[in-house]
This record gives sequence, C-alpha cells and structure tokens, in this order.
Amino acid sequence: MTRLLLTDAARPAVVEVEAIDEHGCARRTAIAGEHPLTLFLDRRELVTLMTLGAAPEELALGWLRNQRLLERLDDVAAVQVDWSVSAVAVTSRPMAEEGRPIWERSGGASALDERLRQRTVTTGCGQGTMFGNLLDALQPLAPDVGPRLSQATLQAVIDRVRRHESIYRVAGAVHGCALCEGDGEQTGAILRFVEDVGRHNAVDAIAGWMWLNDVRGEDKIFYTTGRLTSEMVIKCAQIRVPVLVSRSGLTQMGHDLAGRLGLTLFGRCQGSHYLLFTGAHRFDGPPGLA
Amino acid sequence: MTRLLLTDAARPAVVEVEAIDEHGCARRTAIAGEHPLTLFLDRRELVTLMTLGAAPEELALGWLRNQRLLERLDDVAAVQVDWSVSAVAVTSRPMAEEGRPIWERSGGASALDERLRQRTVTTGCGQGTMFGNLLDALQPLAPDVGPRLSQATLQAVIDRVRRHESIYRVAGAVHGCALCEGDGEQTGAILRFVEDVGRHNAVDAIAGWMWLNDVRGEDKIFYTTGRLTSEMVIKCAQIRVPVLVSRSGLTQMGHDLAGRLGLTLFGRCQGSHYLLFTGAHRFDGPPGLA
Repeated sequence: MTRLLLTDAARPAVVEVEAIDEHGCARRTAIAGEHPLTLFLDRRELVTLMTLGAAPEELALGWLRNQRLLERLDDVAAVQVDWSVSAVAVTSRPMAEEGRPIWERSGGASALDERLRQRTVTTGCGQGTMFGNLLDALQPLAPDVGPRLSQATLQAVIDRVRRHESIYRVAGAVHGCALCEGDGEQTGAILRFVEDVGRHNAVDAIAGWMWLNDVRGEDKIFYTTGRLTSEMVIKCAQIRVPVLVSRSGLTQMGHDLAGRLGLTLFGRCQGSHYLLFTGAHRFDGPPGLA
Repeated sequence: MTRLLLTDAARPAVVEVEAIDEHGCARRTAIAGEHPLTLFLDRRELVTLMTLGAAPEELALGWLRNQRLLERLDDVAAVQVDWSVSAVAVTSRPMAEEGRPIWERSGGASALDERLRQRTVTTGCGQGTMFGNLLDALQPLAPDVGPRLSQATLQAVIDRVRRHESIYRVAGAVHGCALCEGDGEQTGAILRFVEDVGRHNAVDAIAGWMWLNDVRGEDKIFYTTGRLTSEMVIKCAQIRVPVLVSRSGLTQMGHDLAGRLGLTLFGRCQGSHYLLFTGAHRFDGPPGLA
C-alpha cells in the first residue's frame, strides 16, 4: 500500500473578543471558532461543513465514511486541507493513479447525483444525514457483540470526559465526543476526544480517526455531550460502537433506533446519576438490575 | 384574499419510556418526540425535517420562508399536515388556481433544481442552510432600527423564558426559541414560544408563526436556549429581529455576522449574568456602559 498524503491543518479552537458584562465592564472573552470547510472528492464539490477546525482531515474522511461515499480507507490517496480557500480536497486512488473519479466505479456521475439528491431531500433537518437509505444499509449489532460494562467503567468514562473538555470550559458553544476503551486493562480510557461546533462533526471526526488508526468499534464505548437523536444513534451504529453514553437526554427516535439496532444506551449521565434506556445485557449494574 | 387552508396537527411532545437508574430501579421517564416530516411544495418533495412536531404547519411555512423558496404568505393556498404519511403538503395559489407550480414564475423547475443543488452543497454542516447565497441577499439592520432595551427588560425576557420551558423541563433534548415584545407596555412579554429537537426548526417555526399572524420583527427580541452559530444569526436577520439573546455561548462566525448585520447580541445569559457582544447602541445598560 502506498502512503496516504495527509495535511495537519488544525486551526486554533478559540478566539478572544471583547464583551460587556452585567456591571458594564469590558471583558475579554473566549469564543469557539467556526469556519466553513468545503469538501471536494476527486475535484467535485460535495458539501460545506461549518466546523471548529480542530481535526479537519479526520472530519472530511469521517464524513465521507458515514455518508457511505467512500467504503474503505485504502481507496484514499490524499486528504489536503487549505484554509486559505476554506477547502479540503480528498483524492481517491483511482483518481491519483488513473485520473478516474472514484464514483465511476459505482455507476458514474449520475449514480453520485442520485445519492446527493437523496441527501438533499433529507438533510434540511439540521442534522446532516441521508436518513432513509443509510438506515436500510445498517446491520443491527448482535447481543453478544460489545464490551460488558461495570458501573465503575461507566463512571470512569463520565468523569474522564468531564475533566478532558477543554474548549467547552473556556468558550462553550461546542459539543464533545469521546471514543473510549471498553475492554481490557485500559477499560474506560479515552482513545480520542474531539470537540466541534456541531455534534455531528465531532462524531464524523471520530469515524475518520478510527479509519486512519485502524481502530474497530465493536469493543468501544462512545460518549457524547450532546443529545441522542436519531442521527447520533445511526452514526454510532455505522462505526459499530455498541455502547453510547450521553450526559444529555434522548429523543423518541433515538430510543427506538437504539433498540432496533441492538445498542446499549445511557442518557442523563451527570455526577453519579445515569439512566440506562436500552441494551441492559451489556451492563453489570447494581443488584436491582434484572 | 381567499382563506388559507391550514391543518392543526401538533403531535404529543413527549412520550414515556422505561429506564433503569443508578440504583437499578426501573423508572418511567419522559423523552422528547422526534418524527420525520417530509415537506412537499406543489407536489414536489423538497426536504425531510426531523421534528418534535409541536408546530408542523408553522415549521413548514417558516422553513420555506427562511430558505427563500416562498416570498410571501399571500402566495400560499394550503398547508396540510398528514402524520399518517409523515408529510406536509404546501400548495401555492398559482397551483390551487391554475394548476401551475409556483416555481414556474421564477425560471421553472431548473431554477428550483439549481437552488436545491446549492443547498445540497451547503447543508451537510448539520445546520441546514444554504449559507452563501442567503447571506448575499441579506440587508444589515440599520442602527436606528429596533427597540432600545433596558436591563430590566433583558432580565424579564430571561426569567420568563426559563419559567416557560415545559418540554425541556420534563424530557430535555429540545431547544426553545421565544419571540418577545421589545417595545411598548408589554415589553419583555413572550409572544410565541416553540420547542423542537432542532434549534433551527424552532426558529423556522417562529418565522412561520410571524407570517401567519402578520407580525413584524423590527421591534422584537429573539431568545434561544441554543448556541448562537452563524446560522442562527442569519435566520434572525432574515426575520428582521434586531436583538438576539441566548443563555448559551456563541461562535466566532455568529459573532462576526452579528456585527456585519447590525444585530445586538447577548450571550451566556444565566441568572443575573449576561454578556453583551455586539450592538451596544440598542442597550441602556448599567452606568459603566459607554
């Protein structure tokens, strides 16, 4: 395998602006960065992501992965971010080696147009996915797949993420996602933590990081500071992580999908409190738990 | 003017599910509804919105308004929600009266396709707008437009919204938006409050309500529980509300755009605390304020 060409173009995450507080005093205040990043795949413009810019290469790869526009990392020759034009160019191996865009493999430009059209129809939700056809392609996670969690591990994950958040603490206005070890000696350890202005970007960036580092999802725990909506549950099922933890609430469709896709879902995790909503078979809870 | 045909199809906002708490006890817990709602304009499918479903007719109208796919309410003959097929059908007057889709006025199906393509390119951000061209069409709000706020009014808005939130209190996982009176005897009063699983849906629904009730934005205050990102600022400028208040933080682009569009921006409003970021000329703050 030839080397993947990758920029390393993370942006400063916070900027300082002047604000006036309730006493009429001027205060320098940190706010979160937000930048447009237009994604090109084999020179074709696909989408503009509004991002903090902390992990733009991982974000671009993870977005293409989670939208199923790329099937495997081996197909990628280069991911090049250039903030001077607010763009990330992803070049496939067929393009780099033979000058053929990768989508010509699977029906050509018209098949790509059709997939993008379907996206048009389903992404105005402010959630950014192509719900219908992505869901159809998803396999539920079998009950025997995934870590078996103790209450101590769950608590360790919650505590570690809280201490890890850096941008949120100084600037707010971001969501964080963490991929944690679910098994073995390092159980509960944070493997990768990403903050972004969109919680969907943060999970996409984790998906890109997993590809780049050849990390599988089946023995991991996924933590998000954001709400567990339908899209968050779908994205976690796509990266095959069986355990989802959030300190926020969840929606009805997030709950339904977690059940159908065989995920273990913890919500409202704050301090020592939590609620287990689905997938109790992966949890060694307190004695009361059936 | 002939009558506008309008369904009244709000859905129950919360459902109860069973969860297990940290003591191993089963607990009935309220979670927020989340439902797909596919929007058709003159029989053409445009988008699927994931929504709580509390104000589906207002949401559909406000989405079309904020995407600039409809220019005025007079062009609308009917808004009909049918949850049994998860759809809302918006019928224009040209369609109702002459059988011609409304977009044939402005260049036909190909012009609509072009607008939808541009949206494709910019909505994967999880934020749901067509950023570039919407921004180009926006006029800044002049400094002499808008209410002049006292600290007491700001505090009244913050307090009232906090007491008003109902779904958030029982189920979490929603954002609320409020349109408040900025002038006159009722200063600070909440005119309309909408909660939704997406903060973008909530502001779109407010925009739809303003159309239906012939309410202008220039003398109003807009409150959101969510973060002030670029898209929230753009949407408020579209409905011409000059004062934005949030209890959350803001992003760099939200801050930049508020300055460029002449908006007054308050962030991190919690208890008696707040930070004024832009547009101080509309605020009678404490004596320290220049």
